Amino acid sequence: MTTNLDKKIPLMEVFGPTVQGEGSVIGQQTYFLRFGLCDYKCVMCDSMHAVDPQQVKANAQWLTQRQIFEALYEFRSKQQHSTPWVTFSGGNPAIYDLQQLVDLLKNDGWKIAVETQGTVYHRWLLDCDVITVSPKTPGMGEKLELDKLDLFLGQFAIAGRYRDRLAIKMVVFDQIDLEAASMVFERYVRDAYGISASQFYLSLGNPYPPGTRDARASGVCLECGTPDLVQELVYRYEQLLPDIMQHPTLCRVKFLPQWHVLLWGNKQGV
Amino acid sequence: MTTNLDKKIPLMEVFGPTVQGEGSVIGQQTYFLRFGLCDYKCVMCDSMHAVDPQQVKANAQWLTQRQIFEALYEFRSKQQHSTPWVTFSGGNPAIYDLQQLVDLLKNDGWKIAVETQGTVYHRWLLDCDVITVSPKTPGMGEKLELDKLDLFLGQFAIAGRYRDRLAIKMVVFDQIDLEAASMVFERYVRDAYGISASQFYLSLGNPYPPGTRDARASGVCLECGTPDLVQELVYRYEQLLPDIMQHPTLCRVKFLPQWHVLLWGNKQGV
Repeated sequence: MTTNLDKKIPLMEVFGPTVQGEGSVIGQQTYFLRFGLCDYKCVMCDSMHAVDPQQVKANAQWLTQRQIFEALYEFRSKQQHSTPWVTFSGGNPAIYDLQQLVDLLKNDGWKIAVETQGTVYHRWLLDCDVITVSPKTPGMGEKLELDKLDLFLGQFAIAGRYRDRLAIKMVVFDQIDLEAASMVFERYVRDAYGISASQFYLSLGNPYPPGTRDARASGVCLECGTPDLVQELVYRYEQLLPDIMQHPTLCRVKFLPQWHVLLWGNKQGV
Repeated sequence: MTTNLDKKIPLMEVFGPTVQGEGSVIGQQTYFLRFGLCDYKCVMCDSMHAVDPQQVKANAQWLTQRQIFEALYEFRSKQQHSTPWVTFSGGNPAIYDLQQLVDLLKNDGWKIAVETQGTVYHRWLLDCDVITVSPKTPGMGEKLELDKLDLFLGQFAIAGRYRDRLAIKMVVFDQIDLEAASMVFERYVRDAYGISASQFYLSLGNPYPPGTRDARASGVCLECGTPDLVQELVYRYEQLLPDIMQHPTLCRVKFLPQWHVLLWGNKQGV
């Protein structure tokens, strides 16, 4: 009989330590485990190499949960000192039952952050330290499935104290995305869900993820006019900020850049 | 008899809404009340206009706490919608007894963040929502008074649940600053103080605050070589990051840019 413990899971990358670039743990030093495959295929995905089944098939290591733990353990052992944080990213790590991996990591003293769109719930999520739920805005080019999000966040609501570990993060590009974020805010930032405005983050989207056109309109060197992604992102942040500051609900939330994109552009493995 | 309520306090600026640029509430939309005068005079202070007694004397409005509340209330009333957050900054706002102002603000539904170096404690600090304590590193050019910080943080330790509202933020420029930050980490990130590593932030210092030389060495347009403060800060962040990631204690903390400096350089009132 094949049990859950024998099941092999596609691991795309182990990397770090690096810094978390967005959301409630922005600036946190962390390792990353990037899992392959996703129930979504966002047009603006910045990690399509972990989403596209063909690329996952070609490049994933298929490992048991114990093997994934050992890969991370070995990876970290090369450092004399380093962060106790590991972030599960993807793809969507929540499509897998990772209870064994979480148990191994917690027994070894790790702190775990998870990034997921909130479409699939598993019990192991409650054992993680930070759960960042990123419902998709129209700008990301995928559907927002509120029925699934109801179920996902409902489980945290029922679990009581675990609710503090949740953060909702929505990637925004424009006013249409702000309306989607506002709708999610009004639905879930309520006593029934135990989620406060302080747990709600807007994250400025990267207009040029890997594989897209790279013609930057506005952010340029003031001297010579050369396009510059860092200046472009600063410019776009400033452009969107007034609409957020004057918005009846979104004026209460935090608005952040994707700091990793300013630091490293679209480079993988950092 | 002159009571506390009649006492006039120097207010330098009311501005916002803008975004908090650093520390635990980075990205939070907030108004700012900037108070005049400080018990310190950091060489690298980015708000010397609110510290230097001559400039305070020339430019402050001297107001009672009720007048300060009314000034903020009126300032916000020009906006149809806006953030419920106000941040007390300075100077050092904690040199004043602001209990009446805090009571007026809380009764009016405001959320209050405070920025202080942790040298002077007042009871009203416990009624605020976020207290960011910034002990000074050598790079800031002021003394680190651990005896005062012991007393300050000791009051929060005794107050129990209020401890979660604390964040320690240290501005760092180089390795010497990292050692000072590490010493503060080891002294206060302990059960006795109830402060966890998640409440500890490093903030990359601005090497060119108002009034200092402005010759940037490293961050330049890749095309024409023109110095660029944004690129300079991204470059300096990347340079310091490996030392933090390999540090026995600081590998556990969050390391952030001063996002407001990337957005607005040294512009006042944003």
